[in-house]
Formats: sequence, structure tokens, C-alpha cells
Amino acid sequence: MNTEVAARPTLFRQALLSARQGIHLPSFDLSSQDAALAAGEPWRVRLQTLRGGKQEGVNVVEIDNGRLKLSVIPTRGMSLLRADAGDIRLGWDSPVKEVVHPQFIRLESRSGLGWLDGFNEAVVRCGLEWAGHPGPDRFRNASGDDVEMNLSLHGKIGNIPASEVEFSVDAEPPHRLRLRGLVEEKMFHGPQFSLWTEISTEPGSLSFRIEDAITNHDAHPQEFQIIYHANFGPPLLEAGSRFFGAPSSVTPFNTHAAKGLNEYDRYTAPEPGFVEEVYCLYPGGDAAGRTALLLQNAAADRGVEMAFDVASLPCVTLWKNLASLEEGYVTGLEPGTSFPANRRHERVAGRVPRLGPGETRRFGLDFSALPDAAAVTSVRERIQALQSATPYLPR
Amino acid sequence: MNTEVAARPTLFRQALLSARQGIHLPSFDLSSQDAALAAGEPWRVRLQTLRGGKQEGVNVVEIDNGRLKLSVIPTRGMSLLRADAGDIRLGWDSPVKEVVHPQFIRLESRSGLGWLDGFNEAVVRCGLEWAGHPGPDRFRNASGDDVEMNLSLHGKIGNIPASEVEFSVDAEPPHRLRLRGLVEEKMFHGPQFSLWTEISTEPGSLSFRIEDAITNHDAHPQEFQIIYHANFGPPLLEAGSRFFGAPSSVTPFNTHAAKGLNEYDRYTAPEPGFVEEVYCLYPGGDAAGRTALLLQNAAADRGVEMAFDVASLPCVTLWKNLASLEEGYVTGLEPGTSFPANRRHERVAGRVPRLGPGETRRFGLDFSALPDAAAVTSVRERIQALQSATPYLPR
Amino acid sequence: MNTEVAARPTLFRQALLSARQGIHLPSFDLSSQDAALAAGEPWRVRLQTLRGGKQEGVNVVEIDNGRLKLSVIPTRGMSLLRADAGDIRLGWDSPVKEVVHPQFIRLESRSGLGWLDGFNEAVVRCGLEWAGHPGPDRFRNASGDDVEMNLSLHGKIGNIPASEVEFSVDAEPPHRLRLRGLVEEKMFHGPQFSLWTEISTEPGSLSFRIEDAITNHDAHPQEFQIIYHANFGPPLLEAGSRFFGAPSSVTPFNTHAAKGLNEYDRYTAPEPGFVEEVYCLYPGGDAAGRTALLLQNAAADRGVEMAFDVASLPCVTLWKNLASLEEGYVTGLEPGTSFPANRRHERVAGRVPRLGPGETRRFGLDFSALPDAAAVTSVRERIQALQSATPYLPR
Repeated sequence: MNTEVAARPTLFRQALLSARQGIHLPSFDLSSQDAALAAGEPWRVRLQTLRGGKQEGVNVVEIDNGRLKLSVIPTRGMSLLRADAGDIRLGWDSPVKEVVHPQFIRLESRSGLGWLDGFNEAVVRCGLEWAGHPGPDRFRNASGDDVEMNLSLHGKIGNIPASEVEFSVDAEPPHRLRLRGLVEEKMFHGPQFSLWTEISTEPGSLSFRIEDAITNHDAHPQEFQIIYHANFGPPLLEAGSRFFGAPSSVTPFNTHAAKGLNEYDRYTAPEPGFVEEVYCLYPGGDAAGRTALLLQNAAADRGVEMAFDVASLPCVTLWKNLASLEEGYVTGLEPGTSFPANRRHERVAGRVPRLGPGETRRFGLDFSALPDAAAVTSVRERIQALQSATPYLPR
Repeated sequence: MNTEVAARPTLFRQALLSARQGIHLPSFDLSSQDAALAAGEPWRVRLQTLRGGKQEGVNVVEIDNGRLKLSVIPTRGMSLLRADAGDIRLGWDSPVKEVVHPQFIRLESRSGLGWLDGFNEAVVRCGLEWAGHPGPDRFRNASGDDVEMNLSLHGKIGNIPASEVEFSVDAEPPHRLRLRGLVEEKMFHGPQFSLWTEISTEPGSLSFRIEDAITNHDAHPQEFQIIYHANFGPPLLEAGSRFFGAPSSVTPFNTHAAKGLNEYDRYTAPEPGFVEEVYCLYPGGDAAGRTALLLQNAAADRGVEMAFDVASLPCVTLWKNLASLEEGYVTGLEPGTSFPANRRHERVAGRVPRLGPGETRRFGLDFSALPDAAAVTSVRERIQALQSATPYLPR
Repeated sequence: MNTEVAARPTLFRQALLSARQGIHLPSFDLSSQDAALAAGEPWRVRLQTLRGGKQEGVNVVEIDNGRLKLSVIPTRGMSLLRADAGDIRLGWDSPVKEVVHPQFIRLESRSGLGWLDGFNEAVVRCGLEWAGHPGPDRFRNASGDDVEMNLSLHGKIGNIPASEVEFSVDAEPPHRLRLRGLVEEKMFHGPQFSLWTEISTEPGSLSFRIEDAITNHDAHPQEFQIIYHANFGPPLLEAGSRFFGAPSSVTPFNTHAAKGLNEYDRYTAPEPGFVEEVYCLYPGGDAAGRTALLLQNAAADRGVEMAFDVASLPCVTLWKNLASLEEGYVTGLEPGTSFPANRRHERVAGRVPRLGPGETRRFGLDFSALPDAAAVTSVRERIQALQSATPYLPR
């Protein structure tokens, strides 16, 4: 599908969906045995089509690597619905139970909050033209005039169906399983972004990687934003769960969040009516520029780690929505190119990057389910060491 | 599908659509003979999928009980498209001829009047978060701030596809035919309503019942509204048709309607350019709290009765749109928890109820097609007796 | 499908899509040989369904008359995606590559510019209730009040799926191939328009005709607008391409366009960041009231002609978007009932016609691909003669 991938030898490759080739498989089910790989770790990949209500026609691809099961939603911008590894669940329980087809999403509704009608994923991208809060921003229209435009919450990319989806298995051990997708955010007299995304995992592993390439196909430089809205609920999230990062600064998003600043990295039990608290962190990186975030449970024997480069994703938003289980008891660990304020605010703060004509920017995130105290401790100590080396700096 | 129903013995039960089970039958056709019930009254139920234009993919379930045929639209919130009993038609002729799929509805369009792009049902629910006229109302957002939100006409529930649909036949005579559906109006940081609705009828009957259960799944009390927008056109509606109810007060909705107050319960012939008139009634109830509404034709030998509890549906909106046949010559008899003004107005008037966490409110409406003068007279006299016992009260 | 057509003897007739009959063919493929017409010019017609991304489920009908191939999009209001005749391409390269299903279009988004999310056709209709620029206009609502409504760019008709689509072949030579479609723009308390459109061509011809009939089904007169937004890019459009018409006046749309007035009919090479220029022309007609427009390439050996009646389409908008290839290097030759300013402006200028109750207005456009210098010269000289006979008049 692009030369970079075509060059890697594959044991198996199958287009599940392709606008260019006119392919949309009604179903797909392949296992390591079918692929004549019975000798290695067992795995299975399945494409399903959901039915009923607002999820009618939604595709979900499940990749089970034997220890970890990923559920990806091509119809919703290749978001990750959830990931499960034994009793570790990456994801949360939203009031939105169905996997909502974008045909039913009206981003402009509710004064720009329509995105919330479909929000229930473990990892959903915010972006690409804008990624933050709704409200007016100014842009230059096709007549060369500066006009005001109302942005909608978290942008469009999470509600655009993928145009190309391909599953492949590396020819070389460890026979990495890869699901690639193309999501296009393009319009006339507007941005022309493509997002090539790959979510991949090795058979038998507790880790997976998201690798994204965002390209500006316009003849002009174009502002863009991306925030990886990764969300975790019970059982990882519970009273006594803790967040670890290596921030050089922690800034409350508003005066409400400021009241909880001293406890910003600790979690309480579900509390009906809890008003969300948001903190803005600049994570420090190691010598290679890598940083990591950790959410651990109360017993510190289960956790999730997210690792990424601070150069590409310099901002981390920590979202605490410790409301009732019915409302959605959830925390978001959200690496991004910016914080989620309205683009007009982020622009002034210098946090809205541009892509030149034809330019591609790459982003990678490594997620790991941590199955025991040893794994959790190891990650935590690594982050604490990084924190020790990261001076707190006023911004 | 819920315990209440599971407990009732059924002769036959079939899920036609189920988000939970991944079921969406492409078609379904069952008759009393198929169900080994040839000895009783004949009936037939069919699921069809509409094609073409804005109705592509819309499901309609027709329940023919031998004398009465109900057409229900799972794709449009389980609305009743029409009911036919011989020459009696419950329903009307809207300029909207197709049964519009919600994917084509933009409630926010036309300054909040997008609901009108699909309006052609005999009975459509307005609700559940709001049910009335468009325009700004204030609400408290997830950050705890009071913000303004533009409501759209008549709310969302009529344009949400059902998530679960089941047809069943009671094991016990009279072998009632039941179509149950679940419609969910849920979002993150917003209301979490489920509507379980059942429309049912007995073989050979001229009556049917709508029974709804609305549940608030949130951990908080939540405002809600419901108005049953029941609409009737020719041949029941004609010059000389009359409305009968037992109101304790009749209030014109605006100064325009006030001019027609003396004749509010009488109907004239279609008149191009007729500006709609709306009247707000508080119906009186009998000893059991029941009230009834009647629309009879000019000869008083055909009619429709609607009966319900005044405690649950204390408000009746009478809508007269006596415009040309092309524009839609129609009257609405609309029992509701409120009148159709904007929610901010209804709230001040004390007509916006709340549901507590986990609380369920039930609503029932009995519709009867009245096939002759005797049937019409009987209902009219009952309502007139109720009117005599209902003192007019200033509100 | 209507009496006019039913009266014409056909060799072949097939409904491809019909809301009334419940027909939606999954595919269709017929050639002159299948139709027992092998003796004449060969032709072929095919219905395809696109897959993937925002084009999932979109129907495209290709009519290949042996020399000219037309691609029509029933799902997008019967727009013409492109027409190809050898190395002549009517159409352009939009940044929007997919043929976007209306389910993904939000006309109200981006301050009323949502139409641009799907804009990539060779010919798309703007209309019918309004056709021009977004922004507020005033209208009278169902309560008889004058209220303000925000219009969206270019109206709704281009994003409404056809309700009826029929392919037929004339019984009589030259066995004209006809694709007819019905697109309905109807709502309650709003306009009730039907558009019956036919696109037709003769086997072996380089020409095709669009014939439209717009009917007001309301009991009232109703304003309407239509602009045929015909768009051409490379290779017809290049540095040195020229436009020819016979205008009695040429008015720049704004002060920006005024700067380019002296060169309004000449085209330059793609220029990144080119701000679109729009000119408003009143074309003169010949004795029969016909006029023609020509776009010729730099060598004047390839071109496209559009011919129509000035009485029905008195306004021509010339749109020059000579931006980079990536942004969309394209010119629009747009005959219409008005220019594309907001309806409130066009109304004041007397350019918003009305249709009486039941009235039908017909529009016809003849397109010809011009394959050589002789053909181009012939059309150009005809237009130049018409220009000589058309006095420039101040408006």
C-alpha cells in the first residue's frame, strides 16, 4: 500500500477494505494455523460487522496475539476500542455502549460537543485540523479573508471511516501482526491530511505499538494537531491507583483542577457528580528522548505503560473523570502535540505545529500491559529515575 | 430481553434486530398459520427494508392483526408510520413521502428545524432530553459551568435507530401480538436514557397499545420530556371533523391561536397558507385517573380514540395545521409531560419532570379505531360525561 | 416513470433504483450486444457500488457510448462525476478523491461550508431552495413569523440521493441512451421540490445532454434557484487556455476579482495560494435564444462547449481557481438562474425566480467534447459572431 511496507517481506497480506480497489470484506477470520504458522505462538484475526442501533454496519477488527486481544474500529478512524490481556483491560465503560457509526455523529451539535455521542474508545485520536475544545477560531478562507469558524470538540479524525485497511504478518520471526489503515481528512478549500496508521503486536506479547504518519498533501504549509486520547477505567482505575510520569511541570487546566493539584497523580473511588480535572504536563525524556507514563492499580500489581518520544509528542494531558461508574469512571493519559484548549489558545502558546507541503510527521506509541508487581515496579522505577533527572521548570 | 417480558409465556418469540446479539434480519414474514395458530384470528407480521432515496435501508415492521395493520419504523425510534383499519387511516399525508433514514437528518439545520425533514409519522415521540421548540436553553457542562445550548425541534429520540427489536406472540389467548424495541439516547457527559417500547394488539381487534418505559441510567437525577405527537389527516380529518377531550383549561399557544379559540375543537377544510394553531389543554381524568381524546369525522361515524393516564401525561397539545393537502392537512393530538414550548419555558412552568438515578417512568396509550356511529357516540358520550365532571380551572 | 417518457418507445428499459417499487440493484451491466443492438454503435452501461472510506455504498452509473464515457452519481443527486472522450476529460482533480456519500456531509459545518467536503464533480447542481453563498437570510416560518435562517453553501440538492433511477434505450435510431433520475428536496413546513433529470447521449457521439424538470409540489409559490456548477481542470485547463462566451456584461464578484478583469477570460498556470476569482456574466443569445460557452486549451485543439437557453439560465458565473494542482486547479462555467451570492442579495437583484403551485420549469444543457482544432474553431467563431451581435450593456 506504500513502498515502505511493500518492501518488508510478509508471510501473509490481505486488504480487508480498500476504496481504491473497491474491496470491503463482509467478514474475515484467519488464525496462525490457517497461515501455516502453527509452530509459533498462536494468533487469530477477525473482522466483524456490528448490527443494530447506531452501530449498524460498523467494522471491528480483533487481533488476538495469544495473550493480548486488540479491537480496532476501521469505521471510526482506526481507533482502538479496547485491549484485553487476562484481567487487564485497557479501556473503560462509557455510557455510550454501542460503537457508533459516524453517520450518526453530528460534531456541531450541542454547541460543538457532538463528539461525545460516540466516545467510548481505549485510544481515540483528536485532530487533525484541530484537536481541542470547541468554540470560535479564526481562519483565512478561499477568498483570502480572515473569517471566524466554530471548531468542534476534538476534531474530525476519530469519526472518519478508514479508506484502506490491510492485515499482514511479517515473514521474519517474530512474525509481527500488523493492521494498517488510511484515514483521510480532506476537503476542498481546506486541509488535505492523510493519516497512515499501523497497530501491531508480536504473537505472545503483552505490548502493542501504534505508528502513525500524517502527511500534508496541500501545496501550502498547514497547521495540524494530534492528541492520543488514551482512556482507562476499572479494574486498573480504582481508589488508590496512581499515575507516574516524569513531568518538568504540571499545570492545572483551570481553577477547578487547581484545587486538586497536590493529589493530581492519585485516584479516588467513583464519586457521582465529580467534575473532571485536567492537568497539563511537559514530560521529560531520557538520553534518547523517550518518556513513559504509567497507570498502576492500588495494589501496584497491574498497570499499563505508554512510551513515546517527547520531541514528537511534547505535551501530556492527564484527564481525571472520577465520576460514578454510570457516568464513566475514567482517566485519560493523553500525549499530544498540544494540550486540549481551543486551537486559538494553543496557537498563541506556540503549540500548533505546521506541516510543509508534502511533509510527513511520524508518531509512535508503545503500550504495555503490566501483569504483575515486578513489571509494574520496573516501569515505575524507570520513570522515577527519569523524574529525578528532569528538573521542574517554570513555563 | 428484560425480565418482565421473559416471565410472560410466549407462543413465539423472535429477535428481528439486536445490537447485543449482532442480529439484523434482512427480512421476516410470519403468519398465524406459520405459528400453528390457524385456529384463531389470522394475523401476519413482516419486516421489510425500504430502498431508494433517503429511505435506503430503513426497516418497517408491519403487524396485521386481521382487522388492523400497524406499520412501525425501528430505524426511526420505533415510531408508528401509520395504522389502517378498513377505511380508517391513522396517519396523514406529509409532503415528506419517504421514510427518511436518520443518517440524512440534521436536527441542527434550518436553525434547529431539521426534524421536519423526516416528519410524516402517525405517532412519533418528541424527547427525551428535550421535546419542544428549538432555541437556546442553559445547562451545566462537565466542568461544572452553566453554559448555553441550542435545542433542536422535538429532540432526538424520533431519529435514533432501535438497538433491539423483538416480535412475540403471547402463549395465552387472545395471543396478543407484541413488538418491543429499545431506543437509547445516551452520550458521554450527557443524558443516559433508555426507552423500552412495546406496541401490541390482539388478533381481530381495532385497538392497539403503546407502552413505554423510560429509564435514567445516570447516577444523577435527569430532566426529561416526552410528547406523543399523534397525527391524523384525511379521511378522519375533514371539514366538520371535531375534537373531544375533557380539559380543565384550554390555552392558546400564542396570539395567533387565540383568534381561533372559540372554534378550537372544530375543523375546517384545507386552506392553503393556513398558519398552524396550537392549544394547550390540561385533561381531566376519571376516578381511575384515565382520560380520553376523540377525533371524529364530519358524519360522526368514523373516529379515533386515545386513552391514557393524566398523572403520567398531564398535558395535551392540540395542533391544527389545516393547510392545503400539499402542505400537509393534519391535526395532532399530543399527550405529553409538557407542552411543546422550549424547555426553558416549560421548566419555569414546572412541567419538566426529573428521573432519579436508575428510575423508570412508564407511559401507556390505548388507540382505538372507531368504525361506526355507535362506537364514535359511545366514546364521545364518555368524554362528555368526563368533561361535565371536570371543572374549568384557571391555571 | 412519467407519462412523457412512457410515451416514447424504448428498446430497453430498466429501473436501477426505485423508492416506490423497492428496487435497488446491487449491480447492473448491459451492452449493445446484450440489447441485441450489435449492428449499431457499441455501448455499455454499468452500475457500480463504491467501497471504503466516505464513499461506502455510493452508486456510480457509467454510460459508455463508444466514444464518450459518462460517470453519473445517483447517490449524490445525479451529479456528473466526470466525462471522458479520448484525451479530453470533462472534470477536474479535487483534493477530495472519494465520491463522498451524503451520510458523511454536514452542510452546516465550517460555518456553512460543509458542501466542500464532497466537492469533486464535473457537473453538480447548486439549489434548489437556495444555491449561493452561506449566511443569514430571512424567511417566513409556519407560524407566519419572519425569522432568520442560515443558508449553507450551494444548497442541498447535490447531497440528496436519487429516489428513482432508470436506464433506457430509444427504440428508434440513433437509439439514444438515457439515464433518468428523481431527486426530491422536500420537507414539512418547507419547500417541496422534485427534480427529474435526464442525462442522455447517442452511441458514437461526443455530446451529451442534461435535461432537468423542477416542479413545485406545494400549494404556494416558492422561490427556487439552480446553478449548474460545471468544472474543468487539466488537460483542458492549462496556461494559455481561454474562455469564450458572448456576455453583454462582465462584473467582478468582488474587489479581488476586479483586479483580474482585463484577463478574466484567460488562464494562467497553477499558482499555489491563488485566491479564487469570480465573474458574473449575462450571456447574449441568438435568434432562438441559445447561447454557448467554450473552454479551449492552449493549442486551441481541444475544448468543451456548453450550450443552453438564455431565457432559462440568464446568468453565467465564471469561476477561476487557478491554484496548485494539489489544491484543485479548476475553472467553473456555471449557467444559472442567478449568480452565487447569498440568496438575500440575489433576491434584491431580482434574480430569484418563483415556481407557482404545481408549476414545472425545464432546463437543458448540451455539452460537447471538441476533439480537434476544426471543432474548436467552429464553436469559437460561432460564439464570436454571437458576441459581435451582443451589445455590451451596463447593468
